[in-house]
Amino acid sequence: MSATANPKVSPEALFEFLLRMGDSTLILGHRISEWCGHSPVLEEDIALANTALDLIGQTQMWLGLAGEIEGHIKGKELGRNADALAYLRDVAEFRNALITERPNGDFGVTTMRQYLFDSFHFILLGKLVASTDARVAEIAAKAINEVAYHVERSSDLVIRLGDGTAESHKRMQDALDDLWGYTGEFFLGDSVDEAMAAAGIAPNPADLRAEWDAAVNLVLLEATLKRPASSYAHKGAKKGIHSEYLGHILAQMQFLQRAYPGCTW
Amino acid sequence: MSATANPKVSPEALFEFLLRMGDSTLILGHRISEWCGHSPVLEEDIALANTALDLIGQTQMWLGLAGEIEGHIKGKELGRNADALAYLRDVAEFRNALITERPNGDFGVTTMRQYLFDSFHFILLGKLVASTDARVAEIAAKAINEVAYHVERSSDLVIRLGDGTAESHKRMQDALDDLWGYTGEFFLGDSVDEAMAAAGIAPNPADLRAEWDAAVNLVLLEATLKRPASSYAHKGAKKGIHSEYLGHILAQMQFLQRAYPGCTW
Repeated sequence: MSATANPKVSPEALFEFLLRMGDSTLILGHRISEWCGHSPVLEEDIALANTALDLIGQTQMWLGLAGEIEGHIKGKELGRNADALAYLRDVAEFRNALITERPNGDFGVTTMRQYLFDSFHFILLGKLVASTDARVAEIAAKAINEVAYHVERSSDLVIRLGDGTAESHKRMQDALDDLWGYTGEFFLGDSVDEAMAAAGIAPNPADLRAEWDAAVNLVLLEATLKRPASSYAHKGAKKGIHSEYLGHILAQMQFLQRAYPGCTW
Repeated sequence: MSATANPKVSPEALFEFLLRMGDSTLILGHRISEWCGHSPVLEEDIALANTALDLIGQTQMWLGLAGEIEGHIKGKELGRNADALAYLRDVAEFRNALITERPNGDFGVTTMRQYLFDSFHFILLGKLVASTDARVAEIAAKAINEVAYHVERSSDLVIRLGDGTAESHKRMQDALDDLWGYTGEFFLGDSVDEAMAAAGIAPNPADLRAEWDAAVNLVLLEATLKRPASSYAHKGAKKGIHSEYLGHILAQMQFLQRAYPGCTW
C-alpha cells in the first residue's frame, strides 16, 4: 500500500469521493469514445477521441488513488487497482454523475452534454488544486490543464451551433432542455461531501453553483439559447442508483476483462 | 455423459453442426427479444416475445446435445453444458448464420429478417425430422411445430406490409434489398455438411435452395415485392467469421454470467 490514509477523514468517505471523480471521467470518456470514427467531421472526431483519452487518463489517476485509499478501509486487506475498479464493478457500485451516462444522441446532444459537464468539471478542479490532500491537489493540477481546453472547445461549439442555422439552433435547444435535469445533481451534497469540505479536501458542491450559473448563463446568451426554467434534478448516482444506460455501457466496456480475466496487453 | 456418439460421423463434425443449429436460434432469439416492450403494437410485441422464447427453447435442446457430443471429442474430458456454450464462448466460436446478427432496424427490417430465416428454418427442419440421428430428429420434431407458426406469421406480415401502403411497401423492399445478401449463406455447404449428408443426419444445404426459392418467390409475389437479382452471398459464419454486431450482442447477452460466474436463479 503506497498511499497513506488522510487522517482528517475516514478512508470510506475519501474512497467514495475519489470514485465519484474517477467514475464520471471514466463513463463520459467511454461514451464519447463511442463516436470514434463516426463524428460528422474529421476534426471533431479527432478532438473527441483526444478528449476521451484525457478523461480516461484522469480516471487512471483518480481510481488509482481510490484503490490505495480502499486498502485503508477496515476489513479490506488491500485495495483494488484502477483496472479492477473500472472493469470489475457492477452498476450499483458506480458513482458517476448521471449526465455522463446519457446516450450520445446526435452530435448536438453530445456537444451539449460535454459542455454542461466540462463547465462544472473545470470549476470543481479549480477548487481541488488547493485541496488540503496533496495527492488530490496534484491530480487536479494535472487534469485542469486538459479540462481548460475541453471547456474552451465545447463552449465554442455550443455557441457556434446555438447561434448557427435554424436547424442547429433547434437541436442545441432540444439537447439543453433534455439534459438540463441532469445538471442539478452536480450541486447536491451528502455526508461524504460534508466530510470532504470540513477537511478542506474538496468544496461543498452547493458552493459551486453560483460560479457555474454565471459561466453557463454567459455561454447560453452568446449561443442564443434559452436557459430552461425547471429546477428539477435527477439524482441517485452518488448512492449507486443509475439509469438503465449504465448497465449497457458496462456490458460493452467490461466484456474483455470479464471474458478474459487478468488479461494483459 | 448421457449421449452416445454417432458412429457414422466424427464428434467434431456433429458438434459443429449442432452449434450451427443452436447458435442461429440463440442469436436470432436474443435479437428479437430486444424488441420486448418496444414493438409498434402490443400484439406484435407479444408475438415476437413468444417467438424469442421458442427460439431460446430450441437453443437449449441443440446446445444441450452439442455439449454432450463435445464430450466425445478426443482430448476433451467432458462437454460444456448449454449455458456454458451460450454464455462463455467468444465471437470466433459462434456458428450462427450472419443474418441472425443483423441489427433490428425498423419493424420492416425485423419482419423481413424473420421471414427470410423462418422460411429456410422451416424447410431445413422438415428434412431433419427424418434424420438418421434419432436425437436430431426428435429436436427437429419439437421445433418444427413452433417454426411452422413462425413462418406462417412472418410471411403473413411480409405480405400485408409489402402489399400495404406506399410507405410500408418501400420499407419492406428496402429491407429485402439489404438482407438479401445474407440468404445465400443458408445454402453454402462445407466438409461438415458433406459429412452430415453422407451419414443421413442432415441435408446438403444446396439441396434446399429450390424449395426455398419457390416458397419465397410465392410470398414476394403476393407481397408485390421485387426479388433482388444479386446472387452475392456474405459468408464466413460457419468458420466463426462474424460482423462487428455479434461482439456487441455477446457483450450484452453474456454480461450476467461473466460478471457472476456460476450464478443461478
